[in-house]
Amino acid sequence: FEELDAERPRVYPLPPRSQPNSVLPEDLKTPDSHVPRDPRLIRLTGVHPFNVEPPLSDLYDQGFLTNKDLHYVRNHGAVPKVQDEDVLNWEFTVEGMVEAPFTIPLRDLIAEYEQITYPATLVCAGNRRKEQNVVRKTKGFSWGAAGLSTALWTGVSLGDLLARAVPKRGARYVCFEGADKLPNGYYGTSIKLNWATDPNRGVTVCYRMNGELLHPDHGRPVRIIIPGQIGGRSVKWLKRIIVTKEPSDNWYHIYDNRVLPTPIDPEASADLPDVWKDERYAIYDLNTNSATCYPAHDETLSLSDEDEDEAPESYAVRGYAYGGGGRRVTRVEVTLDKGKSWTLADIRYPEDDYRLAPEGDTLYGGRMDMAWRETCFCWCFWQLDIPVAQLAGASDIMVRAMDEGLMVQPRDMYWSVLGMMNNPWYRVAIHRQGRQLRFEHPTQPALISGGWMERVKKEGGNLSNGFWGEKVQGDEQDAVEQEP
Amino acid sequence: FEELDAERPRVYPLPPRSQPNSVLPEDLKTPDSHVPRDPRLIRLTGVHPFNVEPPLSDLYDQGFLTNKDLHYVRNHGAVPKVQDEDVLNWEFTVEGMVEAPFTIPLRDLIAEYEQITYPATLVCAGNRRKEQNVVRKTKGFSWGAAGLSTALWTGVSLGDLLARAVPKRGARYVCFEGADKLPNGYYGTSIKLNWATDPNRGVTVCYRMNGELLHPDHGRPVRIIIPGQIGGRSVKWLKRIIVTKEPSDNWYHIYDNRVLPTPIDPEASADLPDVWKDERYAIYDLNTNSATCYPAHDETLSLSDEDEDEAPESYAVRGYAYGGGGRRVTRVEVTLDKGKSWTLADIRYPEDDYRLAPEGDTLYGGRMDMAWRETCFCWCFWQLDIPVAQLAGASDIMVRAMDEGLMVQPRDMYWSVLGMMNNPWYRVAIHRQGRQLRFEHPTQPALISGGWMERVKKEGGNLSNGFWGEKVQGDEQDAVEQEP
Repeated sequence: FEELDAERPRVYPLPPRSQPNSVLPEDLKTPDSHVPRDPRLIRLTGVHPFNVEPPLSDLYDQGFLTNKDLHYVRNHGAVPKVQDEDVLNWEFTVEGMVEAPFTIPLRDLIAEYEQITYPATLVCAGNRRKEQNVVRKTKGFSWGAAGLSTALWTGVSLGDLLARAVPKRGARYVCFEGADKLPNGYYGTSIKLNWATDPNRGVTVCYRMNGELLHPDHGRPVRIIIPGQIGGRSVKWLKRIIVTKEPSDNWYHIYDNRVLPTPIDPEASADLPDVWKDERYAIYDLNTNSATCYPAHDETLSLSDEDEDEAPESYAVRGYAYGGGGRRVTRVEVTLDKGKSWTLADIRYPEDDYRLAPEGDTLYGGRMDMAWRETCFCWCFWQLDIPVAQLAGASDIMVRAMDEGLMVQPRDMYWSVLGMMNNPWYRVAIHRQGRQLRFEHPTQPALISGGWMERVKKEGGNLSNGFWGEKVQGDEQDAVEQEP
Repeated sequence: FEELDAERPRVYPLPPRSQPNSVLPEDLKTPDSHVPRDPRLIRLTGVHPFNVEPPLSDLYDQGFLTNKDLHYVRNHGAVPKVQDEDVLNWEFTVEGMVEAPFTIPLRDLIAEYEQITYPATLVCAGNRRKEQNVVRKTKGFSWGAAGLSTALWTGVSLGDLLARAVPKRGARYVCFEGADKLPNGYYGTSIKLNWATDPNRGVTVCYRMNGELLHPDHGRPVRIIIPGQIGGRSVKWLKRIIVTKEPSDNWYHIYDNRVLPTPIDPEASADLPDVWKDERYAIYDLNTNSATCYPAHDETLSLSDEDEDEAPESYAVRGYAYGGGGRRVTRVEVTLDKGKSWTLADIRYPEDDYRLAPEGDTLYGGRMDMAWRETCFCWCFWQLDIPVAQLAGASDIMVRAMDEGLMVQPRDMYWSVLGMMNNPWYRVAIHRQGRQLRFEHPTQPALISGGWMERVKKEGGNLSNGFWGEKVQGDEQDAVEQEP
């Protein structure tokens, strides 16, 4: 592989340089002992399998694009090992209900098809799940609010491969299967064939991330990227693309990445195969979401004394937001009075810079494929300067985003048994401590303690009372939430 | 025009027969004195222009398809008069940033292009606006919850016409202009060119509704139909299709069909041209919404006495729901305890029956164009049987829908100066009156009084207190909402 020079001036952001990492000591005794990693990543499921998110502030500080050092990872099992000399020979199939099935090595994918490069934000369906787990334990592990990352992806449009294979009449789904063998078989899932061939959906077979060959944790050497959809559909270590009449019957397609109705608890869910198989509960497009990155959890802010004015007059509250299915976040609003009034935040959309690429522009060997697109597949950044005096008078900062479909993040949590797609208003509590304000996020990832949700619960508050567990007068009957 | 026989057996619903109507006495002195109409339609803006919705129960009772007698109407001014002999000669243009502009009469549109037929629900962006007007007067008139209707539309894909015209590089929008001359010019608006040429969006130039030539109120003889988007983009009496680099600068495109941020009130809005022109506040896709049709407003239900059991044991609460931009409503939930717990309702999707049409099926001269589509462009119907004893113990029935993008209707209203896209949970209050329950919808359309919102407001309740104006203990400071 040639080294691809991305250093000439561009009208759009390029990724922060990544660093050479080593295999970490804790990975040496696992099947991932061949995978170099960044020690800053926070492990969410013990040592192995590797499921991690970066510290939220580090993620935000890195800017629009996330390098492989900090990109979140969701692995179900051991990472397939692929030697350098085998990368170009890696093969996958296009098969099933097609006129002309074929097997193709990565070498031919690169040589025979048009290459494209574009940015996409991947988000785990479990992003912000820790909040659900504090309310009531789900079957999923505890993501904080950093289960998302953005990279430049290079590869071939899936539609080009399907056009060669020619799907037969009656075909409606495309299944993907990876090389990661798990207790219930190889990881696999499906999307609709209509989406897979829709240029506006941008489904791509990728082999570069931020210009580098895929890191083993991100699917080396070949993976699917489905922008605007939950990360769980973007199958890594791709081995098979199968066109079908019905959705995937893979165990992980049926029993993962679903939002069942709230009344179905972990116990009841064990015996409801028809509910699990109802495609209406499957998640594809992301839902609209936002979070505050600054003030960070436990950050403090000095209040000015009368006789000194070192302290700042205002504070730039800021964070991220994203929509699903290509829908733009059209407004982000902040409230300091629990939703009685809202103030518009400013929004930056770095993704739009890529639309300005000159005709014919290429990056990492791929055409910069954005000028014609109307969809938004990346996170955006919001900011609101708030006078410190106002923050000092408030008990919390809450944020919500609205998308171009005029849907707004809900006030209340939609709890479900897998704890996915959690997107209520993101609340940062404010505590006055002498001449300082201290800020408290809802949770901390994994088993890390801290956050107002855990605190409120320990104090006997009911997190589901519609008031973030705060005492509501006349509501004494709503005592402590009972863990089932 | 031939009479088109639609009487042979079909796997999908056909429209209810419409009746011959006369010109109504009140229209005789208006410019619409040539337009026959159904007297059941409720006028929302006095006698003229003609803006009407059907009684909600009548609409629901007519089923999936609405005939022209009950279909809602949104006219900005006088209805253009087109004589029978002029219908086939009606011309419109395809012009602007295209290589090959042309003018085409309806006669050629029918003769030279493939015809398609499909069902689509049109919804006025003001549907349910009366609720916003009770909270605080908007600049819009008072739609109830019946500002929507579904019909079978026949015409030609807009993409086919644009393919003939060949848009130039840099073109991004398609403007539509009607023949209805208004105080601020002809009515016009625009959508994105990308959508206009996307088969999944289904944008169509139509001349038949439910198999009949368009009724004058619905655009006779030619109109645009944009399924999944607000009705205001589906321009009637079509005269011009203009491909452009920028969004439409038509007055009605800029100063109508927008959702400005809540803090902008009618007075402030008069002097904010840049806010009005911010395309992020323009509305295209519908947002997800639902309403209860039965129990109807003021309907009563008998409770069983101990010594007689004539009264029913359960009641089928039922209504409609819809999503936007082709997104399916994937669940509808009902609460009897103000959102503490929710029960799934059953959903019927009559639209799916059309997907089962045999290959090559035609209706009204158009190919039934649904088998390949994954999008949902029509309303669906939900129902939940609730024991009468439970209803007797509840103070209200609230319903919310969730769409396939995992976005759920919000609990609280998003008020805006034009009062559009109102979609909080739909609440029907329950009153116990002796041995009966009486049900009360939030509002009645237009100036018709009735509904719990008006009542609560008159009683001094604050409709914006997050509890539907009910008294919240310890919340005395939230007294009566002051009308500005």
